[in-house]
Parts: sequence; C-alpha cells; structure tokens
Amino acid sequence: MTLHAVDLIRKRRDGEELTPAEILFIVEGAANETIPEEQLSAWLMAVFLRGLSLAELDTLTTAMRFSGETLEHPRLGRRTVDKHSTGGVGDKTSFLVAPIAAAAGLADPMISGRALGHTGGTLDKLESIPGYRTQLSLEEMRHVLDKCGAFIVGQTRNLVPADRKLYALRDRTATVENPYLICASIMSKKLAAGLDALVIDVKTGSGAFLRDETEAAYLAALMVETGERAGTRTVAIQTDMSQPLGRFAGNWVEVQESIALLRGEREPLTEDCREISLILAGWMIYLGGQAANAEEGKRIAEEKITDGSAFRIFREMIAWQGGDLTAIDAGAAFHAPKFSRTLHADRSGYFTACDCTKIGWAVQRLGAGRERAGEPVEAHAGIEMHAKLGAKIDAGQPLVTMFTQNDALFAEPERLLRVAITIADAPVTPPPLVRRIISAENKNKFLNPPQHP
Amino acid sequence: MTLHAVDLIRKRRDGEELTPAEILFIVEGAANETIPEEQLSAWLMAVFLRGLSLAELDTLTTAMRFSGETLEHPRLGRRTVDKHSTGGVGDKTSFLVAPIAAAAGLADPMISGRALGHTGGTLDKLESIPGYRTQLSLEEMRHVLDKCGAFIVGQTRNLVPADRKLYALRDRTATVENPYLICASIMSKKLAAGLDALVIDVKTGSGAFLRDETEAAYLAALMVETGERAGTRTVAIQTDMSQPLGRFAGNWVEVQESIALLRGEREPLTEDCREISLILAGWMIYLGGQAANAEEGKRIAEEKITDGSAFRIFREMIAWQGGDLTAIDAGAAFHAPKFSRTLHADRSGYFTACDCTKIGWAVQRLGAGRERAGEPVEAHAGIEMHAKLGAKIDAGQPLVTMFTQNDALFAEPERLLRVAITIADAPVTPPPLVRRIISAENKNKFLNPPQHP
Repeated sequence: MTLHAVDLIRKRRDGEELTPAEILFIVEGAANETIPEEQLSAWLMAVFLRGLSLAELDTLTTAMRFSGETLEHPRLGRRTVDKHSTGGVGDKTSFLVAPIAAAAGLADPMISGRALGHTGGTLDKLESIPGYRTQLSLEEMRHVLDKCGAFIVGQTRNLVPADRKLYALRDRTATVENPYLICASIMSKKLAAGLDALVIDVKTGSGAFLRDETEAAYLAALMVETGERAGTRTVAIQTDMSQPLGRFAGNWVEVQESIALLRGEREPLTEDCREISLILAGWMIYLGGQAANAEEGKRIAEEKITDGSAFRIFREMIAWQGGDLTAIDAGAAFHAPKFSRTLHADRSGYFTACDCTKIGWAVQRLGAGRERAGEPVEAHAGIEMHAKLGAKIDAGQPLVTMFTQNDALFAEPERLLRVAITIADAPVTPPPLVRRIISAENKNKFLNPPQHP
Repeated sequence: MTLHAVDLIRKRRDGEELTPAEILFIVEGAANETIPEEQLSAWLMAVFLRGLSLAELDTLTTAMRFSGETLEHPRLGRRTVDKHSTGGVGDKTSFLVAPIAAAAGLADPMISGRALGHTGGTLDKLESIPGYRTQLSLEEMRHVLDKCGAFIVGQTRNLVPADRKLYALRDRTATVENPYLICASIMSKKLAAGLDALVIDVKTGSGAFLRDETEAAYLAALMVETGERAGTRTVAIQTDMSQPLGRFAGNWVEVQESIALLRGEREPLTEDCREISLILAGWMIYLGGQAANAEEGKRIAEEKITDGSAFRIFREMIAWQGGDLTAIDAGAAFHAPKFSRTLHADRSGYFTACDCTKIGWAVQRLGAGRERAGEPVEAHAGIEMHAKLGAKIDAGQPLVTMFTQNDALFAEPERLLRVAITIADAPVTPPPLVRRIISAENKNKFLNPPQHP
C-alpha cells in the first residue's frame, strides 16, 4: 500500500496510533527530504499537541537512530557508557565523567553539543584549548576511543540526519518543548553512538529548560523507557539547577575548574560539581558492569580521581583530539580575560533565591555564547560565583565576577545578574543536589503524561 | 515591536489569544509568501487542534477578505445577496436562486467553485453550456451584474489570495475539516464579494462533508456570527443531504433539471429541489429587504418562477457570460450521452437508506468530476435517480440510471451505487428537508464548540 504523508498527519491529528511502517515513512521522508517541510511541520505540531504512545515513541527513536550512519564498537573490548545532560549553567561534569569512566575500564564515545540559549556548550568550552578538534571522522573516533577510552566530539553530518532535519524545523515551528520530540531527538543521537549504558542528567530548577519538576520527571521516564527498549541500560537522575554548578560558568574558566577537580583539588564552592560528577560517574560504572551498585561505582569514581588516572586519561584524550597540552598546564593565565568586573552585595542577609536562567544569559552575553548558529564564541568570557544559595552574605561582599574581552559588553550581564541574585533576611535551605532517580525499576510510576490546562 | 511567526505559532499552540495585529501578520505573510509554508502549516495545525476565539475568527476572516481585491457595488442601486452551499450531490439550487433574487429586485454576485471530492461543481455544470465564461474581470462582473442582476463566475487570482495560499496548504497538511478554518475560508470569499445579505445552505446527512449534525450546527453558527459581525445579514439553513437533491446529478443533466424548474415544470422527483430553492431564495429576498419575512420571501420567489421572470433573467445571465442559448433551448438532446445503464431493484421493499457520498463518487467517476485540480470534466456524465428515500420499491423496478461517454467507466460507479442504496422491509420516514435555521436571533445557542474525545 502506498503511504501518503497527509494521511499520517490526519491519523496523528485524530489521536490514532501510527504503525511502525508509517513512522518509518515519516522519518525516512525527513532524512531524504521526500516529505516536504509543510507536511513534516504539521505532523510535528500534531505530535506536540496530541502526544505519542510509548510504542510510537520507541519506533520514532529507533527509526531516527538508524536514519544515517551509526557507531558500533565490535573490537573495542570494553563496554560503552555515556552521560547526557539536558543542559545547565556551569555544567562541566562531562569533562570529569568521561575520563573517570575510561579509567574504570569502560569507554565513553561522547557526542556533544554547542551553547544553546542560556546554556553553555561542551564543544565551545573544549575549543578554548588550542588545536582541539571537535569534528572527527568515524575512523578517527574509533582510534581515539581505542587509545584512551573516551572522546568528546560534535555531531557529524551522517549521524542521525533525520534529527538534524526535524530539529531545524522544530526550531522554526514552535515544536521544541515537547517531551516526546525531545526524547526522540536526544535518545536517537545517544543510541546511534552504540551504548551499553546511558546516564541522563535531567536538570530541574530555575536554570533548566524544563522548570516544572513533573514534566522533567515525565521526560526522564520516557528516556529511560526508550533506552531500555533499545537494550541500553538507562537511568535518569534529576539534579538541581537552581544555581550555576560549581564556581565558574563560561568557556576556559570551566575547563580550568574541571582540571582542578580532576587533580583532586577541593574547595567549598566546587563541592556540588564534584559530588554530582561522582554520582553520575558512579552510575555509569555500575550500569557499565564495573560495580555492584551505584554507591560502589561512586567510590570507584572517587579513586580514579585520587589515583590520578582520570586526569591522565583526560590529558590523553585532549592530545589525541589535537589539543595543546601546554595550554592545559598554563592554567588560568592562558586565556586571562582583558576585563573583569565584580558585583558586591548591597545589603546583608542570605542568598535566598537565584534566577539561574538569567545568570546563564549573562554568561552568554559576556561572549561565551552566540546569538545565531555558526557565530564564534569567546574563550575568555565567563563568570565566577562567590557564594552559593543559602549562604550568609555581608553587605559589600563580592557576589559574582564577570570576565570578558570587551568591556562594552558588561552592561546587560550586570543588569541580569543584579536581578538574578536575591539577598533577603530569612535563611533558606538550599535544594538537594539530587532530587530523584528514575531507573528501569521505578520508571512506570512516572510514565503518566502530565495534564495540561 | 517586530513580530515573529514562531512566537505566534507558540501562542496559538498554548491556547493564548492572538491580537488583531498578530493575525493580520499571519494572513499578510500567507498572501505575500513572507511566512514560509512550514510555519503556516504548523500554525494551521495548532488552530485545528486548539481552535480560535470568536474575536480571532472574526479578525482572521476580515484579514483574509481584504488580502486582495474586493468587489464593491456603489452605483448598482440594488442590495446584493448571495447563497452559499457547503457542498452536496445534485445540488443545483444556485441556478434557481440567483435569477429569482435578481427578479425580486436584488443582485447576486455569485462566486462559485468546481467539483471537489464527491460533490459537483457549479462552474463545471455551467461550462457544459458552450461559450459560457466562468472567468470574468472585475469590470466584466460589474457589467453583467448591472445588466441582469446576477452572475455566476469562478474565483479570480486577485480575490482573497490569502485563502488560495492557506487552502492549498490545508489540503496537503490534513487541516481541512475544521470549523474555524472552513468558516474563515468560506466567509472571507463571500464577504469579499460585497454582500448585504448571505444565506448559507449547510448540508447534513450522508452526502455532506460534515456528517455530524452538532458539528454542522456549530459551523453554521460560526458563519452567521462572522457574517453579522462584518455587517452582512446572514442566516444558515441546515438542509438534508441524505440523498441526491432532485432527480439528476452530474453536469448537463443538472442544468436541464434547473431549466425545467425555472420554467415552472413540476414532478414528484424534483419537488425537494424546488422546495429548498424557494426556501433559500425566500430568505435571500427577506434579508435583502424585499419581503417582511422569509415566508413572504418564499411566496415572492414562487411568483418569479410562475411569471417567467426568473427564467428570463437566467437566459440573460447565460448570454451576458457568453453562453450559447441554442444549447439551452435544445434540451437534453444537446449533450445526449453515448452510453447509459440502469440498475434495477433486486428485491421488493422500501428505499430505507442511502449512502449519498458513495452516490456522489459514482457521479464523479462517471466523468462528471476529476481526480486532480485542472483536469477536464465530461458534460454528458451523470445519473438519474428513479426513487426517493422512503419510497415503496418493487423488485425489478429501475433505481438509478448512469450516463457516460465511456462505457469502460461503468464498473466502479455501478459497484458504488449498488452498496449505496438499501432496500429493506420496514418502511421509513424520510428526513425533513430543513433540519434547522440558525440566524442572528438564535445563533448564540449553537456557539459552544462540540466536545471531542
């Protein structure tokens, strides 16, 4: 029977379930551009407003996953694991968990992204290391993974072409913020990397894309369901993004902070980042089969920092991907910003509330992010937080320092930061770092779609 | 403030009301092709699934109406009225009501359409008259209206270009069958013709596009509301389309039946068509201010047949639009079909049920309609019904006769007609011709959107 896109739009519009062949037809039509954009976008809006069944979501994700080349690791001799984050501010955990997992005998083929909206981009941060190549061929990826157990690269043209097409359309047609479409987009790309296990860091709080905790839990459960159906052991960890993670947010400053943590250095302002990295790495090690449970995995992760093996692998990975290790060794001085400006508390009290999305925008507007895809970013740009939520604050104490190469850029970030940070009288308890863990064991509890008005 | 299509899609998606400026932006973007198709179609699907407020519908219709040239009638010296039908089988009432209204001192600037799906097209029927021109310039339209008080023409490129764009997209994106979008499409075109009054024939039953009577009533109320808001007195009459209207369905056969009715000829099988035409014309005459109420309007309509004035104006209109009156006078012989085939009852009983959509498809497949826009149609093709719903049937009695120029076409229509007509034991009462009248007085009762599962 010949399939027609208009009939499949009508079915989804009317809430009828599409068959696997019908979903495959749409995904192939997107990848090969045989279905025109106006039909794809009508179908996307129908999915946005009517949802998908779990079976449809599974088929959609699988069809997208196999819409182009995929990574496979037949002669690697290690299990493959990865971590994915839904996006945050100051989130540098990738730089820790990939080498830790490799040090624990696993391999992490990490395909990562760029700064998007108010959130930073792992690739943009890595490109502050001179020479670091984020675009590797499949052959080069295999080689780096074989040599040091981890790579961090960008998407290639041939991996998951259906997602590239659909994502660009979603951006133009207001169909981005939907749990089914987000799940299919993330999971198709992650599964195309050929993973035995996947840990998803689902951010919640004022700096997350999904602010509502119920919606975040639903998305998390969908991703666990989809990963498990595909034979990849998957866990989603809902972590706090009410404030920037760690002490720095930006490009080179985040690489610096990661290096300090990989060296085993500890200080109060980076404990949250260290703790979440160890928890995520612990789950990777457990699901990858190198520990009996996530707690043991976390202890192993900590050892891989203490014994220096994680940092050694990090340096190897940078070197294999073309990065200049003298920059790594030069430290903060390497990309010392031309200008910095510190904001001070105008009253005493407690750091009671943080609009972390505004802080993220401040970081991007200092030059760390971009307005439009393809624009360059500034390695030197970023911020340093001097206090964490809940801290007692004295009038005149430094709250946050901005770094930039162009002091004309200070005005808007300063305005954003001033309104983002609230100092008030009553002390508050900061939110817990981990809010919830959704795994194969408990996912069904969270698989009921949130009701909308 | 600069408007962005993606933000307007998002608002409609989330059920937020768009401002008039925002709706105008979308309609102009459609007419001028400054908003790309993938964004228009995402917006259309969001409207399909989330609906529109009455204020938004009013603005959308008005913006579409004025998206190109409009007709105005400043020196005509008559009130303008028109009738629109949502589409049926054997529906030839336009050929009666336009000249009747003109004979009653009004003017009917009727812009009509072509065969669509299972329904016939007024323009296709008229083109069975040699020489009849359905495409007139605005100047020619004015001239014909001035001379005889009525024209029946096709849409021009410059009238309501936003609808042409949106309608073509809706066809490809499964966003056709929606009361708001149907209302805006119909009413923008009707209002662009510059009408003082409008009578809408909303078909219900097995041959109608909207089979559900509640949905049909809702669409009717939306059109009355939109017309009245635009200052055009509007009434919607829900009429029965459970079986073909009158005796014939097709092209030349329908013109023939209309001529007989305009000549005052009466016979049992065409009484339904005569009655509905008189009711519709009666409302046109009443709303156009030439009668105190619709009943008086109907009596006047009947007089205009009896005194021959309606038929005289019909002939004048044909002549002014280039049609050859010798064809009109030649009667059925003019387009005598090469082949005819009659189906007979295979049992005795009552004509209890009719799938009128299947009958419509049979008519189109005999050559009266087309598969794709732009294909030619056959003047000779059509059917003759020999019985009406509820009639007592004797085994062997003729039920329906098919006409075509190509006897290879008989097979599928015959199959369709056999299953479309049910003869059973128990007598049934045929549905009433007029099911409901929705006017300015009672429209609010029907303005609650039907709930969907």
